[in-house]
Amino acid sequence: MTDLVEQVPEILLMGPGPSCVPDQVYKALSQKTIGHMDPAFLRIMDEIKGLLQTVMGTENRLTLPLSGTGSAGMEAAFVNLVERGDPVLILINGVFGKRMQDVASRLGAEVDTLEFDWGSPVDPGEVKKKIGSKSYKIVAVVHAETSTGVCNPVREIGELVRGGDSLYLVDAVTSLGGMPVQMDEWGADALYSGSQKCLSCPPGLAPVSFSDRAVETLRSRKSKVPNWYLDLTMIIAYWEGAKRVYHHTAPINMLYGLYEALRLLVDEGLESVYGRHRAGHERLVAGLEDMGLEMLAEKKNRLPMLNAVRCPDDVDEAEVRRRLRQDHLIEIGAGLGPLAGKIWRVGLMGHTARTENVDRFLDALRRSLGR
Amino acid sequence: MTDLVEQVPEILLMGPGPSCVPDQVYKALSQKTIGHMDPAFLRIMDEIKGLLQTVMGTENRLTLPLSGTGSAGMEAAFVNLVERGDPVLILINGVFGKRMQDVASRLGAEVDTLEFDWGSPVDPGEVKKKIGSKSYKIVAVVHAETSTGVCNPVREIGELVRGGDSLYLVDAVTSLGGMPVQMDEWGADALYSGSQKCLSCPPGLAPVSFSDRAVETLRSRKSKVPNWYLDLTMIIAYWEGAKRVYHHTAPINMLYGLYEALRLLVDEGLESVYGRHRAGHERLVAGLEDMGLEMLAEKKNRLPMLNAVRCPDDVDEAEVRRRLRQDHLIEIGAGLGPLAGKIWRVGLMGHTARTENVDRFLDALRRSLGR
Repeated sequence: MTDLVEQVPEILLMGPGPSCVPDQVYKALSQKTIGHMDPAFLRIMDEIKGLLQTVMGTENRLTLPLSGTGSAGMEAAFVNLVERGDPVLILINGVFGKRMQDVASRLGAEVDTLEFDWGSPVDPGEVKKKIGSKSYKIVAVVHAETSTGVCNPVREIGELVRGGDSLYLVDAVTSLGGMPVQMDEWGADALYSGSQKCLSCPPGLAPVSFSDRAVETLRSRKSKVPNWYLDLTMIIAYWEGAKRVYHHTAPINMLYGLYEALRLLVDEGLESVYGRHRAGHERLVAGLEDMGLEMLAEKKNRLPMLNAVRCPDDVDEAEVRRRLRQDHLIEIGAGLGPLAGKIWRVGLMGHTARTENVDRFLDALRRSLGR
Repeated sequence: MTDLVEQVPEILLMGPGPSCVPDQVYKALSQKTIGHMDPAFLRIMDEIKGLLQTVMGTENRLTLPLSGTGSAGMEAAFVNLVERGDPVLILINGVFGKRMQDVASRLGAEVDTLEFDWGSPVDPGEVKKKIGSKSYKIVAVVHAETSTGVCNPVREIGELVRGGDSLYLVDAVTSLGGMPVQMDEWGADALYSGSQKCLSCPPGLAPVSFSDRAVETLRSRKSKVPNWYLDLTMIIAYWEGAKRVYHHTAPINMLYGLYEALRLLVDEGLESVYGRHRAGHERLVAGLEDMGLEMLAEKKNRLPMLNAVRCPDDVDEAEVRRRLRQDHLIEIGAGLGPLAGKIWRVGLMGHTARTENVDRFLDALRRSLGR
């Protein structure tokens, strides 16, 4: 039998995640596995917690990576905070806002939504009206909407929510590590991300953080968290305190990888990392516009790490992706939902966000388009 | 800042998991990440599915690894099959049976239990009486109870459940890959495991399999699965068919590792692997008895891969574990719940289950006990 893994091609990952992974992270992934209660491992866990606090801009004690992918972070944020019948407001302008609606509804929340065009940001004026008219237990928004490349005004929305009874829940799956995430400044009470985007680690972990207010809500639930695996009251007991209580076996080697990825990020310096993302984005957009292509989002709303590009009407969208992958070993993403077939999603996340990758992609795209 | 991961010591993992990992699996973990929709990755997924079917003894189409640890497999088995108010019978003789009770109760199931001594197996006679007196939607049992080292009579219980309306749910977290698991022969409808025990892969994945009957139950649910992340109706659409539908970003590198671990297992030959586990177990028990130590379970009920050893009254249980780890770089496990402080749990799982490891451990234990 052929070893398919040995033969995996080296692809330049410019889709919506996973992104390219630095060699040091690969090396970390293959260090010897140790026990999940081993003192040497507990030290690594403590370091990961501190590094995540730095990258997330928070002093929250409950800051840790969950044993699942980014979507498990979303599931965990809602399942720990929602009880049946709780009123929840979800701000939607893409796939991941819709996913929040689905997740919260399945948990029995009374979900209201405010929907905005896919490609436009959430309008804080509308949010202000909505939360003025009804009291919500949770107001939830996606920071970087991966399906459209739009940045939502999380700071402004946070100012509106602040001071009231609502908990403020922010999806930072795509933004974390690629642009400033200031959880405490924004007044966010629950925030989650994924390891495989701007953190430049393979997929498999979901960093989350809960404010003290969110922890209080969690601790004073009337019902048990209806998800044993993601119950943070128990997971905290494994991640905190002098005596660690076994909950489930942590994904040791993935956590090695995340530790190394976070170290690299903090060593490079967060401002420098964000600058690298912005510079790559500007170079990319300039190159695309040179080719006569248009971005989906208006300039002021664009994310640096996820670039949604309109596919011209006379171009076969899927065929271009196929050629990029086959002839140039570059992956980019397709549009989702109503944007399927209409856009390409070009990721510049983490280790991918470098000048040479932008140039290689622009050249390959030019050839694939025959321009 | 010191690189803690680089300095991780090489420990002989003889606890209740994770177990030792072969070099080929470490190498696979550090292969270049590719996209979760990449054709090269879809081929690896198909191979994993086939390899899992072989190791699980099943032809079930719905056979795949979930993106979480073994406990996520337990969560998934229940959350996909249980609806609020469903009567469920759980057979309990250790921590993992208790965990099933907790998981199912949180989902709103009407849970009945049959409890047996920790250290003794489930008694099929009691099960027969119980299922004769009431109709259950699910009857659930742990094959290899990791907390006690006891093997439950899953085949006999399967014969009792067969032909009725109940679904038969089996936890094979610790048994899979270390002793015969014959899902189809047992008539099991849902079975789950973890990557970090006898499969010799680091923790992070939960192989699961559902029979056609279980899939039918899933498809005819009155309510949506109250867990978006583990909803198998959506996960199937990513793992099956010509057109794969994105659900969440699969943990690519962990899946490389599982693929390689399963290949190694099937290449060695399942009978030969099981023989290696049995031989290691017999050598271990003989050595322990030589030292005057006693096993928790009766001979006929013992698992080969998880050996629960009584700690003599005059010995400091935790101190022996500390010495083994510190002086001999060997990890063994402590007792859980009512068995805390009373037993050691010595794992011989997967790559750990080799003569030289047994001998090294016996020698180290002898020194640590001063015998």
